[in-house]
Amino acid sequence: MSMICHRCDQRAVIRLWQHRLQLCSEHYIEWFIKYTAQTIERYHMLNQGERIIVAVSGGKDSLAIWDVLQRLGYSADGLYINLGISKDGDYSHHSLQHAQAFACQHNLSLQVVDLIDQYGAGIPELSSRRHRSQKPCSTCGLVKRHIMNEAAQKGDYDALVTGHNLDDEVSVLFSNTLSWDMEMISRQSPVLPAGLGFTRKLKPLCRFSERETTAYALVNGIQYIEEECPFAEGASMLYYKGILNQMEEQQRGLKLRFYSDFLKVRKMGQLPSHNYKDATGGDVTLCPQCGQPTSSGNLCSFCRLMNTP
Amino acid sequence: MSMICHRCDQRAVIRLWQHRLQLCSEHYIEWFIKYTAQTIERYHMLNQGERIIVAVSGGKDSLAIWDVLQRLGYSADGLYINLGISKDGDYSHHSLQHAQAFACQHNLSLQVVDLIDQYGAGIPELSSRRHRSQKPCSTCGLVKRHIMNEAAQKGDYDALVTGHNLDDEVSVLFSNTLSWDMEMISRQSPVLPAGLGFTRKLKPLCRFSERETTAYALVNGIQYIEEECPFAEGASMLYYKGILNQMEEQQRGLKLRFYSDFLKVRKMGQLPSHNYKDATGGDVTLCPQCGQPTSSGNLCSFCRLMNTP
Repeated sequence: MSMICHRCDQRAVIRLWQHRLQLCSEHYIEWFIKYTAQTIERYHMLNQGERIIVAVSGGKDSLAIWDVLQRLGYSADGLYINLGISKDGDYSHHSLQHAQAFACQHNLSLQVVDLIDQYGAGIPELSSRRHRSQKPCSTCGLVKRHIMNEAAQKGDYDALVTGHNLDDEVSVLFSNTLSWDMEMISRQSPVLPAGLGFTRKLKPLCRFSERETTAYALVNGIQYIEEECPFAEGASMLYYKGILNQMEEQQRGLKLRFYSDFLKVRKMGQLPSHNYKDATGGDVTLCPQCGQPTSSGNLCSFCRLMNTP
Repeated sequence: MSMICHRCDQRAVIRLWQHRLQLCSEHYIEWFIKYTAQTIERYHMLNQGERIIVAVSGGKDSLAIWDVLQRLGYSADGLYINLGISKDGDYSHHSLQHAQAFACQHNLSLQVVDLIDQYGAGIPELSSRRHRSQKPCSTCGLVKRHIMNEAAQKGDYDALVTGHNLDDEVSVLFSNTLSWDMEMISRQSPVLPAGLGFTRKLKPLCRFSERETTAYALVNGIQYIEEECPFAEGASMLYYKGILNQMEEQQRGLKLRFYSDFLKVRKMGQLPSHNYKDATGGDVTLCPQCGQPTSSGNLCSFCRLMNTP
């Protein structure tokens, strides 16, 4: 098996089965950036000149997309949310260090929201307010969505970018399909348009596997937090990722096809599609406490959580 | 762990997790028949007095449903298709013997269609006419669908019953969902209504797992062919059954929920649904060779296959 780069005579560092390509470090970086630009164009994600805020966790995916966006010439600031997770060692502290180091090296602006400082409690405590024994992942999702949108709205950004990769997207789609949750299925998209107080949300890495984003971070020497969140162990999304990887081993390209075909079929109108623009807004009001949009009719879920003793 | 029947003081032979039941042989048989009757009612499958033809393979599922239908008082004849498969031992010959023995014991009528006698070739040869290296499963499906419908139409039966169980249905649904094949998804149903030359098709075992139909055959002493079809090895449906069983181990009830929620969501109009009654019939004509319905505009796929040298 020859492992020479398909674009030069250097040793290839990665084989991209679905693209029938094997590339050296330099050409892999070039290809990764170009393919991200194609994804941005394909889903009409961004226009040049728009101001972006990237949700940065200190992990490989969010640092990779921040890196690519600035290389593509976009004006992209970072947002780090310190979740106050410190079960084994100090997870949140380490991830913040990586985010700050990256920002500093690339002369990028990073806004930090600290849950404990600003709201008096981190994810573990907030989660135990809602339910005693369950995993904190749903609380964490709720808190992050709120803070990300608030920061994007307050900073008047045109778009909010997250580092979700293909494996993230596919595991969520797989889970929602197994339960035929059509509401969640209708909302899953590489782009959620702006509207009703929500900033446009983008996932430009949605067509790269975790292996591919990891490789991008590695060949660029990006330092990122390698530990999984301590709460991820036993989480259903990790379980589904395992199942999907097992099937991918058997049928190369299955994950990307599952995701792309889903988007195609929905575009053709054969699956329900959520669209903020079409929404009448009748059931969305502004939370009297924080001013963020909510469909609860009164306080939003985030403020209700913060008000819970 | 007490394994006493929930309905009497006999030893339980099966635990039905999703129904929170454990039953002795006698009460399991009673429950299985009643639950089949409920499925028939739930999906408006049959009216009393209707004439049924059951596609019998000699396996546990088709013999189980034939057994249940006659116990429920339906007039049900059998149809056995000798596929001429004899790779390891003599698969088709053995399965015919089981079907005939069952018919004889229960004084039921069994019609036999022999592919080699009537059409000059069995599945292995017919399959190699279409494609040299692929598995014969798709050819086998085409041939069986044709012969079943022809027998049902010629015999003027009201409905054609197959022994598909939950695992069969779920693995097909899973496969079609992974590829978002909306045409196939729209057609998958416990009942396909009659229309345009197609007899109504029913799957009254669609809510029983393979484990449950096997148990029914065993406790009734039904002799069935235990070997898998020699071509099944490595077939994708067996692979998906394995994946689904693996997930079921993790989340009991996942398979039945995946199937039932799918049917519910489609009934609510959130997924496309095929309906022969609504079909205009504009694209269905009768094959000039066999008189069966086809959308090819000329010879049906079966006759084209038979005419291929």
